[in-house]
Amino acid sequence: MDLETVIGNGCARDWETVDANDVEPVRVAVIGLGWFTKGRVLPALEASKRCSPAVLVSGSGEKAQQIVETTDGAIHGITYDQFHDGVVADAYDAVYIVTPNALHMEYVETAVEYGKHVLCEKPMERSSKRARELESICASAGIKLMIAYRMHTEPAVRRARELIEAGYIGTPMTVDGEMSQRLLDRIDPNPDQWRLDEWLAGGGALFDIGIYPLNTARFLLGTDPIAVTGTTSSTHDAFADVDETVSFALRFPDGVTARCYASHNARQSSSITVTGTEGRIRIEPAFFQDQRRTLHVSRGDGRACIELEPVDQMLEEFDYFADRIRSDAPIYPDGDHGRIDMEIMESIYEGAADDRWISLE
Amino acid sequence: MDLETVIGNGCARDWETVDANDVEPVRVAVIGLGWFTKGRVLPALEASKRCSPAVLVSGSGEKAQQIVETTDGAIHGITYDQFHDGVVADAYDAVYIVTPNALHMEYVETAVEYGKHVLCEKPMERSSKRARELESICASAGIKLMIAYRMHTEPAVRRARELIEAGYIGTPMTVDGEMSQRLLDRIDPNPDQWRLDEWLAGGGALFDIGIYPLNTARFLLGTDPIAVTGTTSSTHDAFADVDETVSFALRFPDGVTARCYASHNARQSSSITVTGTEGRIRIEPAFFQDQRRTLHVSRGDGRACIELEPVDQMLEEFDYFADRIRSDAPIYPDGDHGRIDMEIMESIYEGAADDRWISLE
Repeated sequence: MDLETVIGNGCARDWETVDANDVEPVRVAVIGLGWFTKGRVLPALEASKRCSPAVLVSGSGEKAQQIVETTDGAIHGITYDQFHDGVVADAYDAVYIVTPNALHMEYVETAVEYGKHVLCEKPMERSSKRARELESICASAGIKLMIAYRMHTEPAVRRARELIEAGYIGTPMTVDGEMSQRLLDRIDPNPDQWRLDEWLAGGGALFDIGIYPLNTARFLLGTDPIAVTGTTSSTHDAFADVDETVSFALRFPDGVTARCYASHNARQSSSITVTGTEGRIRIEPAFFQDQRRTLHVSRGDGRACIELEPVDQMLEEFDYFADRIRSDAPIYPDGDHGRIDMEIMESIYEGAADDRWISLE
Repeated sequence: MDLETVIGNGCARDWETVDANDVEPVRVAVIGLGWFTKGRVLPALEASKRCSPAVLVSGSGEKAQQIVETTDGAIHGITYDQFHDGVVADAYDAVYIVTPNALHMEYVETAVEYGKHVLCEKPMERSSKRARELESICASAGIKLMIAYRMHTEPAVRRARELIEAGYIGTPMTVDGEMSQRLLDRIDPNPDQWRLDEWLAGGGALFDIGIYPLNTARFLLGTDPIAVTGTTSSTHDAFADVDETVSFALRFPDGVTARCYASHNARQSSSITVTGTEGRIRIEPAFFQDQRRTLHVSRGDGRACIELEPVDQMLEEFDYFADRIRSDAPIYPDGDHGRIDMEIMESIYEGAADDRWISLE
């Protein structure tokens, strides 16, 4: 493959199908105004030429209104109840759902009722059963559904995938991926923390961060696992109901394997490595935001570190979503793609509980 | 821990218990004169002040004699049959067994018969059953038995273990280890290649190279796994009877896990990483010889690469063995230690075949 594609042009948006100047921006209703929305989502939507943060939806109308006043392009601040009632439904074209996992469904149902396209955070819902329902509701109504895998539009990941597809590492043999952080150093382990609530989250470290190496392995290999197993553990009381740590193993077709790890109680780190018969590509750091990505590439006797300019991952993701809303091009991380992760993760838990491999075939 | 211990004094032999000048060198009979012996073992024994390559044993007495003539300190070249018959038994104090795995037993039996101490290559034998017999034979006769894990005297590994024991990475959480090479690029896949023969080798990539990340994980954590599983696969006909590739997962006490990989058909690479609650230590490259070891250490916001001068790993290993022969200090990689690896590896195969986790408790 052409070196320029990787180095000289590394952050090019090879996924764009329509010119941003030829189409109307997609007006987004942002559902859920937590720290992630305020710190990551709204700045990206403010910077976007393809979307705008037209409507902000929160439990408190007052809070929503306050944030509207400091957000470029935001027009309406409404409550969840008002959203369900269709208030200002003409003011947005699509919704971005960034609530606790188990609440995704209800906002999708309302979005579908008003004919709005959906960008839904991952994991898709609290269970594969609900993910399947969610997918079905959108499909029946002709609503476009994208699951918010920001790695799919991260240039380092896309360049890695291109190199792999071009045969740079030979035949892919194995993937090693990990993501960990000290969650309790960052959040207060109070009962309102939905990530620690099994009913609201559906799972712990696996659902919250293990999904990054899992999904990125699927994305880089372009295929899905056929069997999985794992190990879960918790040391802190806050993780009584969900896994604090998970280690999991995946079998893909043709003898390809993956080994992954995620922990809310290990030093912050993230990487993903694909080793093939001829070479290796490692992305480190891989999954946390605001980090400069480096592709560590080796083949034969050669080694190279390719540093890519950082991008605003949320901006890339929103613009990809808006591009797909304004064109007929397929959405890669669609409902089917997101539901498969749910099935895999449930099987990892099942395998961990039963001390066996779970077939996904 | 004192930084000087790691950096300024990184290659110090902290395992020495007797001064080489105070004791007689250990005269070694080297059993098996393949490429590894000629390229790695004899140069180390020639350089050693603690051992000498007194007797060389091979299938061909003529070949053995030829190599004696070009090896400093070598005195006798004899055949395997002559060895069993006790020829020149007075000329050596210990044996180093570097034959195919399934033949270790017969040379140990003879060594014990003549009261010689034993350094036996890993894996210890072709099965845990035979490893247990081998261990028992030596113990009953009061013979010292060491299994040749060269990572135990590799300074990079020892410094990593010290840092872990000193709490540098907090509580260890997980280990990721891998070793791979393109074996068929290096050897001729003919029927005489014992590594491809299930009866002679006992196993494939797991026994031959997977034992490196497995055993080094045990050494760095200072504990043994309580359950294991894995996946094996082969693509090339040469690996019809043994695994070409293995991916395995281990559960240690207290929720600690390890994920390991070994392949005879992936690009040469080797590393081992221990991640804890507070930091991480990665050794890369880790397991192949003639490479400069780098400790990649991170903790808090800090990162460092500590490059250690390369050592002759076989020289370190032989000198450790000789030190233990000439003192009463215990041998860390003893028969018990080696047999446990055999049991773990058999359980990995069993888990891979049965799609389940195998308990080792």
